[in-house]
Amino acid sequence: MDVDAYMAERIPLIDAAIESRFDPGPTIPESLRDAMRHLLFPGGKRIRPIFALAAAEAVGGRAEAALPIAVAVELVHTYSLVHDDLPCMDDDATRRGRPTVHVAFDEATAVLAGDALLTEAFAVLSDPTMSSGDPAAVMLSIHALATAAGAAGLVGGQVDDLLFSPETDGAVDHERLASIHSRKTAALFRAAIVGGAALGGASESERKSLLVFAEEIGVAFQIADDLLDADSDEAASILRVQGLDDAKRGAEGLLDRALGRIEGMCERAEPLRELARFCVRRDR
Amino acid sequence: MDVDAYMAERIPLIDAAIESRFDPGPTIPESLRDAMRHLLFPGGKRIRPIFALAAAEAVGGRAEAALPIAVAVELVHTYSLVHDDLPCMDDDATRRGRPTVHVAFDEATAVLAGDALLTEAFAVLSDPTMSSGDPAAVMLSIHALATAAGAAGLVGGQVDDLLFSPETDGAVDHERLASIHSRKTAALFRAAIVGGAALGGASESERKSLLVFAEEIGVAFQIADDLLDADSDEAASILRVQGLDDAKRGAEGLLDRALGRIEGMCERAEPLRELARFCVRRDR
Repeated sequence: MDVDAYMAERIPLIDAAIESRFDPGPTIPESLRDAMRHLLFPGGKRIRPIFALAAAEAVGGRAEAALPIAVAVELVHTYSLVHDDLPCMDDDATRRGRPTVHVAFDEATAVLAGDALLTEAFAVLSDPTMSSGDPAAVMLSIHALATAAGAAGLVGGQVDDLLFSPETDGAVDHERLASIHSRKTAALFRAAIVGGAALGGASESERKSLLVFAEEIGVAFQIADDLLDADSDEAASILRVQGLDDAKRGAEGLLDRALGRIEGMCERAEPLRELARFCVRRDR
Repeated sequence: MDVDAYMAERIPLIDAAIESRFDPGPTIPESLRDAMRHLLFPGGKRIRPIFALAAAEAVGGRAEAALPIAVAVELVHTYSLVHDDLPCMDDDATRRGRPTVHVAFDEATAVLAGDALLTEAFAVLSDPTMSSGDPAAVMLSIHALATAAGAAGLVGGQVDDLLFSPETDGAVDHERLASIHSRKTAALFRAAIVGGAALGGASESERKSLLVFAEEIGVAFQIADDLLDADSDEAASILRVQGLDDAKRGAEGLLDRALGRIEGMCERAEPLRELARFCVRRDR
């Protein structure tokens, strides 16, 4: 199958669902609305939401059933970029070739836009007009996202990322780095894939397999990112503790193991498998 | 009834439920955990969570049923204080006689602690071990909180609060100020009371009455706060656009109307009525 075509087909679906959250309705201050949209349109690869849709399909559900978690995960991903870029954190002035939110607006607006994006993620998931599925599945997806994004996940990973400096013992660094990647990157892959599967009607055993699959693919995705970005001065890069070839082999090993977890799934899991391969072998 | 005794009885219940979210379990970086707890213990009056419990009782439910939304609303209230205090917002160095989070820790930790508190609110609500109620009621409480806290609620109110300067036309100011108070203060009262009622098994018509009750009490609470704080230099104070006596009369009028909304409720709504009176007539 053509993974590029699969992605290109699903992006408009995801974009329209995100866009619908900004339809005229409740009053949002204009500067806040603009700041919230700044990194959303144009957005990135939308890889996490695409995984959510593919996970719903892999367990026999409709891709559309996973739209609430797809949108929610993209909103959380975007909030985390807005806050990570702040002067008190990574202090980045540009992202994807454009000024970051605190540069295009101001610092207070960037903090508040991030807060609003994070909150909106849970508004989408709990919106009765968005979710057609059964409330128990929706609850599972909300809990998956809140756990992935919180103090033991994304936020905790960013705290440790800020503290990380690759100056000490290599073995210790490798472990700490893996833990940061698991929380900063893999966490949202877990929420997207397990949440999408839940909304697609997954059984408990399917959700369990997909949780491990998502963790492995999320970490492999981050390694591929570090490899594409090999000459950056990022402290928390796998290349600070491992050579290029070792890192590549590591990512391929994770991919193999991940694909093994979903071996038993039917043909409808094929897009999920192709997306996993894309994550590791991509050149962008 | 003795409203002080009622409050004193319920605070330990609420504190224990908040404390249980920090039980050893998932790994949270120590500095993050400490920063999250900084404004939680010792906390404030816990007025919003107490309202949540009283709302559950008012519709014939058990107070304990409302604990998830009680905890969640207190976490969201605390996150909003942490972020509002930041240098790029109100730049406050102390709160309740102690250093604010960015002073006691640092700015990055304060942003991240706020993010984690907000996220944890939704983790509590969606945690299957916290909620014994039916998933539809839980979903209602999650949606009430996300709507209250988001871009059209708390966050939007803070954006407009930062822009507010009471220099222009008085009538326009009064309207804008009311809108800020509705979003910054009343929103979380709405989430606490409607969410608590939902978890207590409220009917749709009970939820509708309580929504208006909560809005009116929330605004009255804010007026009482401004009156207690009459000599502060807060820009967005009712006393900038209204005299002391007018403001007092306004709060009493809101209280009367609010009590009218729940007139038909049984004796079990008595604590809710007493709490409403306390909010408006308190001296602390």
